[in-house]
Amino acid sequence: MSKLEEFQKFRAEMNAEIQNIDNKTIKRFMALDHQAYQEGVLEGKIKELLGLACSMVLRCDDCITYHLWQARETGASRKEVEEAMAIALIVGGSIVIPHFRRAVEIAKEIEWEE
Amino acid sequence: MSKLEEFQKFRAEMNAEIQNIDNKTIKRFMALDHQAYQEGVLEGKIKELLGLACSMVLRCDDCITYHLWQARETGASRKEVEEAMAIALIVGGSIVIPHFRRAVEIAKEIEWEE
Amino acid sequence: MSKLEEFQKFRAEMNAEIQNIDNKTIKRFMALDHQAYQEGVLEGKIKELLGLACSMVLRCDDCITYHLWQARETGASRKEVEEAMAIALIVGGSIVIPHFRRAVEIAKEIEWEE
Amino acid sequence: MSKLEEFQKFRAEMNAEIQNIDNKTIKRFMALDHQAYQEGVLEGKIKELLGLACSMVLRCDDCITYHLWQARETGASRKEVEEAMAIALIVGGSIVIPHFRRAVEIAKEIEWEE
Amino acid sequence: MSKLEEFQKFRAEMNAEIQNIDNKTIKRFMALDHQAYQEGVLEGKIKELLGLACSMVLRCDDCITYHLWQARETGASRKEVEEAMAIALIVGGSIVIPHFRRAVEIAKEIEWEE
Amino acid sequence: MSKLEEFQKFRAEMNAEIQNIDNKTIKRFMALDHQAYQEGVLEGKIKELLGLACSMVLRCDDCITYHLWQARETGASRKEVEEAMAIALIVGGSIVIPHFRRAVEIAKEIEWEE
Repeated sequence: MSKLEEFQKFRAEMNAEIQNIDNKTIKRFMALDHQAYQEGVLEGKIKELLGLACSMVLRCDDCITYHLWQARETGASRKEVEEAMAIALIVGGSIVIPHFRRAVEIAKEIEWEE
Repeated sequence: MSKLEEFQKFRAEMNAEIQNIDNKTIKRFMALDHQAYQEGVLEGKIKELLGLACSMVLRCDDCITYHLWQARETGASRKEVEEAMAIALIVGGSIVIPHFRRAVEIAKEIEWEE
Repeated sequence: MSKLEEFQKFRAEMNAEIQNIDNKTIKRFMALDHQAYQEGVLEGKIKELLGLACSMVLRCDDCITYHLWQARETGASRKEVEEAMAIALIVGGSIVIPHFRRAVEIAKEIEWEE
Repeated sequence: MSKLEEFQKFRAEMNAEIQNIDNKTIKRFMALDHQAYQEGVLEGKIKELLGLACSMVLRCDDCITYHLWQARETGASRKEVEEAMAIALIVGGSIVIPHFRRAVEIAKEIEWEE
Repeated sequence: MSKLEEFQKFRAEMNAEIQNIDNKTIKRFMALDHQAYQEGVLEGKIKELLGLACSMVLRCDDCITYHLWQARETGASRKEVEEAMAIALIVGGSIVIPHFRRAVEIAKEIEWEE
Repeated sequence: MSKLEEFQKFRAEMNAEIQNIDNKTIKRFMALDHQAYQEGVLEGKIKELLGLACSMVLRCDDCITYHLWQARETGASRKEVEEAMAIALIVGGSIVIPHFRRAVEIAKEIEWEE
């Protein structure tokens, strides 16, 4: 199983557990998080690039993995993803580099349209 | 060995190593960290919930694991822990979700009084 | 006008502006943020102390001001607030001290039940 | 002088001071920061929205002010900016709200094309 | 009154208030924070530069002001301070720049030995 | 293979991948990150200690591993490293402890001159 598939499996299992928690705040936030990336005046792929860049500067590997995959799903090219990551690198500094390395590893598991 | 036990073992071993470092600042801070959670006008379990919520918004998996376990030890119920985690989720945003997933996984290894 | 009143005025004015933005994600998140602190198995004042400690470790002066005031409104004593802030100080380290100083300044504007 | 103008003045003065520091690392990083937002496969305005969202989740008021203004300069509409800020709010959580309030205040000083 | 003097005055006043809080955790942490910068195998000025760089990457203006002043007091030259700040800039990224600008403003109020 | 060697291998492989990305911002930032630690008025080992302390307060395990190793390469003693880590612990608070534990584990794989 690739790293991306492992992440997707764990994410699905744990999201199911979270749905079983009887807490309205948690349920509503999970729904809202999903909704935030729906296409609006900004295309879906731009929203995913925004999510990706934010995840990089906040240095969350799982979030980076998720938005890389979603960026691909919504039609972002590899070069668009690289430019978004370049901005995150400058904003967030060298502390972002280890996460960038892992992002590059995940990106290799994804088939990009050039 | 469960993930919680693995964490507890590593924590104990490394805390012993840290005690061997000949540095007063380090020794005193480790002692102070322990002391901060002693019961005062706030019950021990409330202090552990404060530690848990802070650990979630700062996104430290080991700290979350530690305070989940300590919350149980000091008498917090599963529902109390869930409400504390819900606040941390709102304060800290979706970047907290991957840590929340791992917290849910650890929480399953703990026997809670409902 | 005290610093607390100044904050309350700016907060009210800008929250009104935010309500005028035609964006569902924003509106729902603002509502959810309000809802998260409603009394549940944890009392309202404990939720405010959780919000206060999280705000301190994340070092947000306005959030600290808000939760100090809400902690008072929901019945927290000065000593309870001090114990919550002590935990935040240990979790977040000396980088929290300047925010702690400003919290102490705001706390002086609030009438606490001892 | 509006808040935006005050920021622009301070920024220009201090950037000039920074240029006088005889340190290659600093000079090169300042140049690189400028270069990162140049149009590539992503339009300039998308890069500014990426900078804006990153600035919000990292909670830097000056950076938010700067990218709001640059977003306008590169042709972003108010609605596009609002959608980018909505994503940052969900990713970064309620701790972002005070910065969002100040962003809304600055946004009022800017003339947007609807 | 210069910005540095204003900071020093507020710091002294609030530290006095903090000493009046009847909470052992807080008192001990404040003492420990002081102690950590005492000369050891590393000179005092190196410890201040460490404090300065950490304050920059964590983006705390008051902490930066404090360590700039302490760096001067313990004998750091302007060039040493600039090199420490350059590292912080690279580690922390462009989000550090607004704090760097304010650091440069404060540094002008300090008389450095070249 | 030790944890340090595993890190070094992954780092080298991914840095090579990063060099293959056709993006000037990324390439220049990677070069600049390298350059920032070159000896200046501050010795190389002091710059590595600055990098180490910044990495600890920002809580990046890979960065800590890297700077521990570089500190050794540039001649820092174990005691100097411990004093730098003690400052980072006080600045960053107890949230740094899990990273400190892992740093201690890595430090054991390194042969220090006492």
